[in-house]
Amino acid sequence: MEEMKVDEKEALACCGSTQFAKQMALASPFPSLDHAVSAATDIWFNKVDVNGWLEAFAAHPQIGESPSPSSHTTSAQWSKGEQSTALATATDLGLQELSDWNARYRQKFGHVFLICAAGRSATEILAELTNRYWNRPIVELEIAAKEQMKITELRLRKLLSAKAEAVSTGSQ
Amino acid sequence: MEEMKVDEKEALACCGSTQFAKQMALASPFPSLDHAVSAATDIWFNKVDVNGWLEAFAAHPQIGESPSPSSHTTSAQWSKGEQSTALATATDLGLQELSDWNARYRQKFGHVFLICAAGRSATEILAELTNRYWNRPIVELEIAAKEQMKITELRLRKLLSAKAEAVSTGSQ
Repeated sequence: MEEMKVDEKEALACCGSTQFAKQMALASPFPSLDHAVSAATDIWFNKVDVNGWLEAFAAHPQIGESPSPSSHTTSAQWSKGEQSTALATATDLGLQELSDWNARYRQKFGHVFLICAAGRSATEILAELTNRYWNRPIVELEIAAKEQMKITELRLRKLLSAKAEAVSTGSQ
Repeated sequence: MEEMKVDEKEALACCGSTQFAKQMALASPFPSLDHAVSAATDIWFNKVDVNGWLEAFAAHPQIGESPSPSSHTTSAQWSKGEQSTALATATDLGLQELSDWNARYRQKFGHVFLICAAGRSATEILAELTNRYWNRPIVELEIAAKEQMKITELRLRKLLSAKAEAVSTGSQ
């Protein structure tokens, strides 16, 4: 079961809310990867309060920008990987436009624009951003929380699969 | 039109979000009281972000407790008036129970329990509180925001009626 254990630091790399991380660590270990994802979903949507959601959003770099050097290393590396399609497909002009809209978004909503970027091109992300910009703040908060959960799930699966593999090959 | 003018300080006494207060002052003066309420509703639900909502919630005393002496005077007096039915109908035991549930609520949601208390008894308020406690944080955030808007509307009508009366009797 060692491979299905998630400690607070690992949970925080999946989702930057300390409430989330503490409760995941308490719920760990999990009988399976699906149980871990299901526990994470319950904690995120039903237990973590709005301040915790905003804390998790704030842990992300702005889409199209590199994570700050002070950010959590695992989280920063994952973030880079998740944005690789977007960064590979973006032109300088596209990145500039993304940056401008991000600033408008932050100005309106008071938090970063959050999207599960994995596999999405810069054009797709910009289309989502300009579209979501017109939402009411409460609507956008819930969409952002759902995107955060997609990111958390991806990261949790990555983390636990890597652990399981390390155990099975004996290279713990 | 002087009576339908709302400055930033007055708006802040109606709703403790600085974003709200600034935008109300910019939208002022209003052609009628209904226009003022309608502008306030639009600003509160569509323009003020989640941080602004939390700021406004934090400006309220806990239900069943007196406002802190440092709180805005007009707002504190209004709050006392709005809670007068509750306070008049509450037993010591009822107030204690209200206080205990308020603490549980704050622990779960990270903000005070907000309800438009005007005309409601302590028993009714406690029933609402114990009922709403089971909501998901995002659901409760939206309910609290709607209660805040009811309070804001009551206060705005009180403020502007008093001003109109002062003008009509010449005692500006």
